Amino acid sequence: MFEQLGLIGCGLMGGSFALAMKKAGLVKRVVGYSKSPSTTDRARQLGVIDVEAPSALLAVAGADIVLVAVPVAATEATLKSIKHLVTPQMLVMDVGSTKADVVQAARRALRDQVGSFVPAHPIAGREVSGVEHADPELYAGRQVILTPTERTLAAHLRCAEELWTRLGCRVTSMAPEAHDAAFAAVSHLPHLLAFAMMQSVIRQENSDYILSLAGTGFRDFTRIAASDPKMWRDILRANREEVLVQSRLFQEALQAFEHAIQADDDQSLEDMLTLASETRAHWRMGALRKHKAA
Amino acid sequence: MFEQLGLIGCGLMGGSFALAMKKAGLVKRVVGYSKSPSTTDRARQLGVIDVEAPSALLAVAGADIVLVAVPVAATEATLKSIKHLVTPQMLVMDVGSTKADVVQAARRALRDQVGSFVPAHPIAGREVSGVEHADPELYAGRQVILTPTERTLAAHLRCAEELWTRLGCRVTSMAPEAHDAAFAAVSHLPHLLAFAMMQSVIRQENSDYILSLAGTGFRDFTRIAASDPKMWRDILRANREEVLVQSRLFQEALQAFEHAIQADDDQSLEDMLTLASETRAHWRMGALRKHKAA
Repeated sequence: MFEQLGLIGCGLMGGSFALAMKKAGLVKRVVGYSKSPSTTDRARQLGVIDVEAPSALLAVAGADIVLVAVPVAATEATLKSIKHLVTPQMLVMDVGSTKADVVQAARRALRDQVGSFVPAHPIAGREVSGVEHADPELYAGRQVILTPTERTLAAHLRCAEELWTRLGCRVTSMAPEAHDAAFAAVSHLPHLLAFAMMQSVIRQENSDYILSLAGTGFRDFTRIAASDPKMWRDILRANREEVLVQSRLFQEALQAFEHAIQADDDQSLEDMLTLASETRAHWRMGALRKHKAA
Repeated sequence: MFEQLGLIGCGLMGGSFALAMKKAGLVKRVVGYSKSPSTTDRARQLGVIDVEAPSALLAVAGADIVLVAVPVAATEATLKSIKHLVTPQMLVMDVGSTKADVVQAARRALRDQVGSFVPAHPIAGREVSGVEHADPELYAGRQVILTPTERTLAAHLRCAEELWTRLGCRVTSMAPEAHDAAFAAVSHLPHLLAFAMMQSVIRQENSDYILSLAGTGFRDFTRIAASDPKMWRDILRANREEVLVQSRLFQEALQAFEHAIQADDDQSLEDMLTLASETRAHWRMGALRKHKAA
């Protein structure tokens, strides 16, 4: 399907994409670049990329598909640095967890070449990072959200849809703003709460002792708190308004529980717990039960 | 080791204890009682208990070990109902997630027989309940916290320690109040936050659509929100003061993140995320790194 993938950022997300593309037979060659030369080197040793490029621009030279898999805050500078070699025939995608900021960055950086850009968010990830953890199966069975700009070329959008589908993903399109509002609720806020849960324990006397008592519930609840802090600093900043809205809504929900506990209002407490428990028990990842509005 | 286990409450926790005791060859017979006759019946059909008792009192008759595995709010009434057949030779334990209230309930209910009672909290559980999910391996490799009263007989405490150790558990003793403070932090609060996370999403327009976008982070973060609502209503009430303290501390930690995000204070944000991430990444379940104080 493609001759040459230009991979900018050979970490967990980028490396896994390269491996998945090769495994699916969708690309012949992968030319890779990472900011850290040791990462690029390691990616080649591990067979994640075939050729090391000395710059982002040179990773793009001769590519018919480009994946920008860098921290969201670095998207604009990265796109600017490759702009001169982006062609209308080239499909350029990212994998960032926020999309409104990425779309704005792409408009500013790519200008008249922005039609080549299809913003993508594969709902996949792990609490570990680095090319060592790159996994050809990381994206299999996951959802991918595409948030095309008003100037994205339809042919590139269709091509991106087909590509991710062939990697085993279910593909959806959304407006960037709707994406960011929804993911503030189901991804960014849970990460923030997990980080805050850890901080809340760490700040206490005997925190090591307390942590030694924690069991499987705590383990799963806080798993995402081990995620990469720099990446999450950038996501929380990039989607600041929506994250703060969700944090407020969450605290209102938490305070409703506190009030029921304080007021000995057993019935309200049980009703709230029951609705939460039943909703979660019936939830299945990626299953849309009824779609009230997009 | 024991002749006859009197099991009061044949649900997930009680049923798993009976199966584990049998599997380890630690008991010959299990006489079981549940409030719901259909549960008792099912427990016998599944081989979790050998004999159905028509009342809690009759489940205790002839037992040398009794496990009370009922919701914490029902502990006092249950202990009162069996008091007349509790003997000084009999080991009586519970498996409740809160301990100060259980110890008080035991003092009131058992009076001069309270020396037989060893309050126990195995750090095990699942988000599903019912005897159908009883599992002889539920307790294997888990911690068990014993919170003896000032009148618990030393011989019973030693016996309880040995029993849980032989079921593959690591056994610790704590004061009931210290137990409740620590578990408010690492168990009760995370559950409350997971329930509040679900409520926060449910209260929003498009909640079904938003939930359809959620991935593995959300899945693990909210797993415990599917837990039994009645059981958690009782735990949150029984340990109300400590839970509210922890909820306040958590909201302070969350608000510190909000302030750093709002103030564009990248360094503070990154520092807080890094400490949380590193602490969680190095945490291992049940591993005590350094014990500042008990």
